[in-house]
Amino acid sequence: MVQAPDASAALEHPARPPGSSAGEFELIARHFRRPASRALLGVGDDCALLRAVPEQQWAVSTDMLVEGRHFLAGTDPRHLGHKALAVNLSDLAAMGAQPHSFLLALALPAADDAWLSAFSAGLFALAEAHDIELVGGDTTRGPLNLCLTVLGLVPPGMALRRDAARAGDDLWVSGVPGEARLALGHLRGEWTLGPDALEQVLPRLEQPTPRVALGLALRGLAHAAIDLSDGLLGDLAHVLRASGVGAEVLADALPGGRVLPTQPEARRRACQLAGGDDYELLFTAPRARRAEVQAAAAAAGVPVNLIGNVDGEPGLRLRDAAGRSIAADFPSFDHFAQP
Amino acid sequence: MVQAPDASAALEHPARPPGSSAGEFELIARHFRRPASRALLGVGDDCALLRAVPEQQWAVSTDMLVEGRHFLAGTDPRHLGHKALAVNLSDLAAMGAQPHSFLLALALPAADDAWLSAFSAGLFALAEAHDIELVGGDTTRGPLNLCLTVLGLVPPGMALRRDAARAGDDLWVSGVPGEARLALGHLRGEWTLGPDALEQVLPRLEQPTPRVALGLALRGLAHAAIDLSDGLLGDLAHVLRASGVGAEVLADALPGGRVLPTQPEARRRACQLAGGDDYELLFTAPRARRAEVQAAAAAAGVPVNLIGNVDGEPGLRLRDAAGRSIAADFPSFDHFAQP
Repeated sequence: MVQAPDASAALEHPARPPGSSAGEFELIARHFRRPASRALLGVGDDCALLRAVPEQQWAVSTDMLVEGRHFLAGTDPRHLGHKALAVNLSDLAAMGAQPHSFLLALALPAADDAWLSAFSAGLFALAEAHDIELVGGDTTRGPLNLCLTVLGLVPPGMALRRDAARAGDDLWVSGVPGEARLALGHLRGEWTLGPDALEQVLPRLEQPTPRVALGLALRGLAHAAIDLSDGLLGDLAHVLRASGVGAEVLADALPGGRVLPTQPEARRRACQLAGGDDYELLFTAPRARRAEVQAAAAAAGVPVNLIGNVDGEPGLRLRDAAGRSIAADFPSFDHFAQP
Repeated sequence: MVQAPDASAALEHPARPPGSSAGEFELIARHFRRPASRALLGVGDDCALLRAVPEQQWAVSTDMLVEGRHFLAGTDPRHLGHKALAVNLSDLAAMGAQPHSFLLALALPAADDAWLSAFSAGLFALAEAHDIELVGGDTTRGPLNLCLTVLGLVPPGMALRRDAARAGDDLWVSGVPGEARLALGHLRGEWTLGPDALEQVLPRLEQPTPRVALGLALRGLAHAAIDLSDGLLGDLAHVLRASGVGAEVLADALPGGRVLPTQPEARRRACQLAGGDDYELLFTAPRARRAEVQAAAAAAGVPVNLIGNVDGEPGLRLRDAAGRSIAADFPSFDHFAQP
């Protein structure tokens, strides 16, 4: 078949007729282009340009959110804008890095002005709260997918790494792990929460709070840190493996908040230990600096709890309040495992 | 319905049973984790850590590739690994930036070892050729989507920006724009190429060559630059708008290579002027430095052609070899336009 090509480009669909509205470039400009203040050059060129920052290291991370996997279809786009940035800021928090800038790549099934307006409102509200600047991005048509890349700054030697836990460290966690999973179970119909309980836990799933201030406060104080995205025990296992140590976790020392203690024990434990989507910080710090950790967390305005200790015996030992061993049969989250 | 949660995490599916193989973490480790040399800390922590580079600015860019839109379903995963990085390197080239490091976020419908093996082979072959290091990433299950973020370095004031074209500049292009679109038309059944012609143009679509060496050679020499992803006229329009200038393009001065001149004129012009997916550099440079541009391109091993000139009259004027005006009715590529 021989025919002239349409006046279109590449693999994609025909181009917008000149003068039509709501094209890609207009959409990007309308919702995402803001004056660059920190960047020398922001959204709109082939690359963003960032000034050299003397004597600071860059922390960079990328996280992709897929509909049906990281958020339910029909999620409020304002919450989604918040969450997409929050989970990325959480990675900076877990390194003790100061947020600097981010890039956003977005695949959308359609260019929906109302959706983009709400999404960008949620995104920029959190960005402004953390003084992080959007410097670049990409928009394309496709199944809904949000891919963010964040850049942060940390002084040399101050990053909170996964491989820095030491035998003798205390094991700490921020916030209330498990509430996000409890909310998800309700949305999925696995169980039913009352309206008060749901109101308490739903924001933990939909609009998690990245613990940036805590990460910064723990610089020079904590040894290792990780953010809880895949469930406490699974994420702890990453730290233990990377650091070549073991740990004992006191399951009943995990903070329960108002709602989890009202739940059946099996459900409560599963949510707390293997729930995922918490975006709290799990970290280790020397026992001798316990009071300093508490003071740093208080200064950051983030509740922290001591939930166990790091030791030299490989593996993870889980005990209840009576000191009884609980089987640690809560495997790590895995995106590709078969049901 | 009240039931205990499975021992799984978050919105995703149940976790991998302990000891099972081919889980997410093993897959990532097997195919993507390489020893960090440039990064202080590479794949495997919450963030990568990059050393401060004194007196250099960072160029950062993100590009998302979606199946069916940026590549056809069933594309050889080795070619896809090459292309996903190539289109991102092309953004660094267009800024005159030296590639430094990149992050890869990947949504896959299934964890397919053979696919990942071929994809990573194509990706790393190009990464090694350009001395760019994978420092972080994310893997999840979902409709096939590749989102890369690249970081490069450029000395202050040396970046090739879109807004720096000046009246009186020459207008240059590298390589042979249009060959990728010609290959795509064959694959789509819009026309049929003979085997020799296809063999010539198909690699331009499947394995484009990012013009990194040319971008570096043009530092301090070119004024403005952009990479051709959405079609020559559309991308040129971005430069003209950002720079507040106009241009005259001599359509018959566009290099045709071996295959395009054998095609009907309408098809040839459409491919050359609005094809897209070229990943060539379009740039402007002072007329007085024409010989230097030619020498720089020769040193970089990249053919360049003079295709027009920048002037102060807003808009874009297209002429043929006889000086006749051709209507510039090849609109810019737009990902969200309706057919």
